[in-house]
Amino acid sequence: MRRVVMKFGGSSVATTEKIKKVAEILKRRKNGMNDIVCVVSAMGDTTDELLSLAGELSKNPSRRELDMLLATGEMVSASLLAIALNEMGEKAIALNGVQAGFQTKGRHGFSKVVDVDTFRIEKELLEDKIVIVTGFQGLNSNEDFSTLGRGGSDTSAVAIASKLGVDCEIYTDVDGIYTVDPRFHKEAKKLTKVSYDEAMEMAHLGAKIIDPRSVEMAKKYGIRIYVALNSASVLGTYIGEDSVEESIISNLSVQDNILLVKKTLKDESVAELFLNLAREDVNIDIISKMDTDGKTLVRFTSVIDEKNLIEKVADDFEFVENVSKVSIIGNAMRNQSGVAARVFDLLNSNGINFHGLSTSEISISIIVDTIVKEKVMNLLIREFEL
Amino acid sequence: MRRVVMKFGGSSVATTEKIKKVAEILKRRKNGMNDIVCVVSAMGDTTDELLSLAGELSKNPSRRELDMLLATGEMVSASLLAIALNEMGEKAIALNGVQAGFQTKGRHGFSKVVDVDTFRIEKELLEDKIVIVTGFQGLNSNEDFSTLGRGGSDTSAVAIASKLGVDCEIYTDVDGIYTVDPRFHKEAKKLTKVSYDEAMEMAHLGAKIIDPRSVEMAKKYGIRIYVALNSASVLGTYIGEDSVEESIISNLSVQDNILLVKKTLKDESVAELFLNLAREDVNIDIISKMDTDGKTLVRFTSVIDEKNLIEKVADDFEFVENVSKVSIIGNAMRNQSGVAARVFDLLNSNGINFHGLSTSEISISIIVDTIVKEKVMNLLIREFEL
Repeated sequence: MRRVVMKFGGSSVATTEKIKKVAEILKRRKNGMNDIVCVVSAMGDTTDELLSLAGELSKNPSRRELDMLLATGEMVSASLLAIALNEMGEKAIALNGVQAGFQTKGRHGFSKVVDVDTFRIEKELLEDKIVIVTGFQGLNSNEDFSTLGRGGSDTSAVAIASKLGVDCEIYTDVDGIYTVDPRFHKEAKKLTKVSYDEAMEMAHLGAKIIDPRSVEMAKKYGIRIYVALNSASVLGTYIGEDSVEESIISNLSVQDNILLVKKTLKDESVAELFLNLAREDVNIDIISKMDTDGKTLVRFTSVIDEKNLIEKVADDFEFVENVSKVSIIGNAMRNQSGVAARVFDLLNSNGINFHGLSTSEISISIIVDTIVKEKVMNLLIREFEL
Repeated sequence: MRRVVMKFGGSSVATTEKIKKVAEILKRRKNGMNDIVCVVSAMGDTTDELLSLAGELSKNPSRRELDMLLATGEMVSASLLAIALNEMGEKAIALNGVQAGFQTKGRHGFSKVVDVDTFRIEKELLEDKIVIVTGFQGLNSNEDFSTLGRGGSDTSAVAIASKLGVDCEIYTDVDGIYTVDPRFHKEAKKLTKVSYDEAMEMAHLGAKIIDPRSVEMAKKYGIRIYVALNSASVLGTYIGEDSVEESIISNLSVQDNILLVKKTLKDESVAELFLNLAREDVNIDIISKMDTDGKTLVRFTSVIDEKNLIEKVADDFEFVENVSKVSIIGNAMRNQSGVAARVFDLLNSNGINFHGLSTSEISISIIVDTIVKEKVMNLLIREFEL
């Protein structure tokens, strides 16, 4: 029997009707001679509903208690899915994060998977059961429930797949990874495969497809991730060693609600500034520094949500809001020079004023006012045939 | 610090507003120099809602999966209560059945507590925390969640109290134990104390006050149970060694929906009949047998819900429905003869026709048609000044 790990997100198990459909998919795969471990998220908006209950009691609830509260969401969906499978005559068992052997460390709500002791999962697979595992959760060294943060169920699935050395299929509400978000660009092309690095860069640069931590783990253990819709009829996207052939740029991603922050100061206080920002846990992206007339102009990007935090550090920041970051990503950039030059030329010849531009090994990001975002996207789509 | 175990039922934690009120009660007790372990049930109708979700997927869901599903109910209420206490500045921690050390055995959904390893509870108490424990659940030897059945949270609370050797306070939606259900008899007297045996007999004979298993455990470990309303202002009822002084009968309880079953058969097949009924797991209460003319008339009582099961055993049973069981209970019956005679006389002189009558060491139960139930209750209330 070929083993496979399949993960279904919250929208796939939002109602008992949808849970039945997932059960049917699993039953078909099982009868197609697969040993299945299935990781599930909480039903629909359960996590938000639980958070709102906690919010009625405290503005700043203890993360340790929240994790116990939130861990119930996946226990409900997992046990219901096992019940649905039993009803169809399939042997199935639901395991929560503790039973499935997830050992975690780090802050509650943002925990990391240290290891998965797959003893129990292996045992149940050998008894020919479909093993349903709650995503998003584990037990830390205090023997307390801990959760992995948003997108954590992807990480749970990839962690099990990594330990079992098998592929991981992630079923979601998009049917694969596209060159551009199809809601913006109808002619966007679906990518049959992208490389680990591209997928990680896409996730970091705004594509809401998969948790970047899970791609990192898949890369480390050399297992493939397959992202697709529930229904097996449409082919999705593989994330693995290889990228799409013969295309420099494989994806365009966008992040809105960027906050551009400027400050003029003496050169010797720059280090202190960023130390203070780090102390407040401010999330900083692109930094640029310019020296003129003995003064230093520092400019960095963050996100709107962090404005309050930034204001704690100093009261003379200049803020620019309504800013977006448009990024293009492609493995082939590694071996191909001149992409940045092409982008510069494109923006200049079309009179686009941009706040900044940053490059990584396989991506270029352009900071622009949100008002010109779509124009920039369309220029890039045409230039790189996305 | 005096230690105490307090248990709050589902109606006491049905909403976040009610959870706040319970938190206030706990905070006051804590500041009154008590070390507190608080056992909670699931919020309001949560358990029924979870059962109904499972019911949408299967008419006969696996009890193992159901137990995982149901165990989430108390995890939600427990973590929310801890969050509410934190918000009030109290140190508190929620532990689920596994973390609280509940080891169980037996059928899923009807498990028994084998032991409570209170190591973690003791540790958290020493750190001056209010320890919130999920009722109703534990871990069995397969490392699976198991639940203790309806009323199981009482058992959880008494089990912890027994291990810690402290009193157990059970807060519910009645303000104590009465001689008669006050909804039927407004002048019913509240009992300040009842004996373990009386409380067990009351629970078995229809009084829905406390799970009889928990009284049995309290008796075994010699700890007292206090049953009362949430608010500390009204005195409740203690369950302990002693009974109420100077009263023969301390309680009248009623069970409706009794099924009276009759069958005529040959004497040698009586044993076989009851063996077959036992095989179907039929719940049988009072049995009577009469021999006439070489035939044997067997009569027993069960409950309406078991009629289908009983019909599986034979097709020539005669059923009498709309039957009730009225019972009087009192510790003093042990040392006082003539109570049964007084009851007989009372029923005869008032022309009450009864189907049967059974006595235990401290109780007398009368099987009557439901239509005369209230008349019988009123006669007994007057006769024994309840």
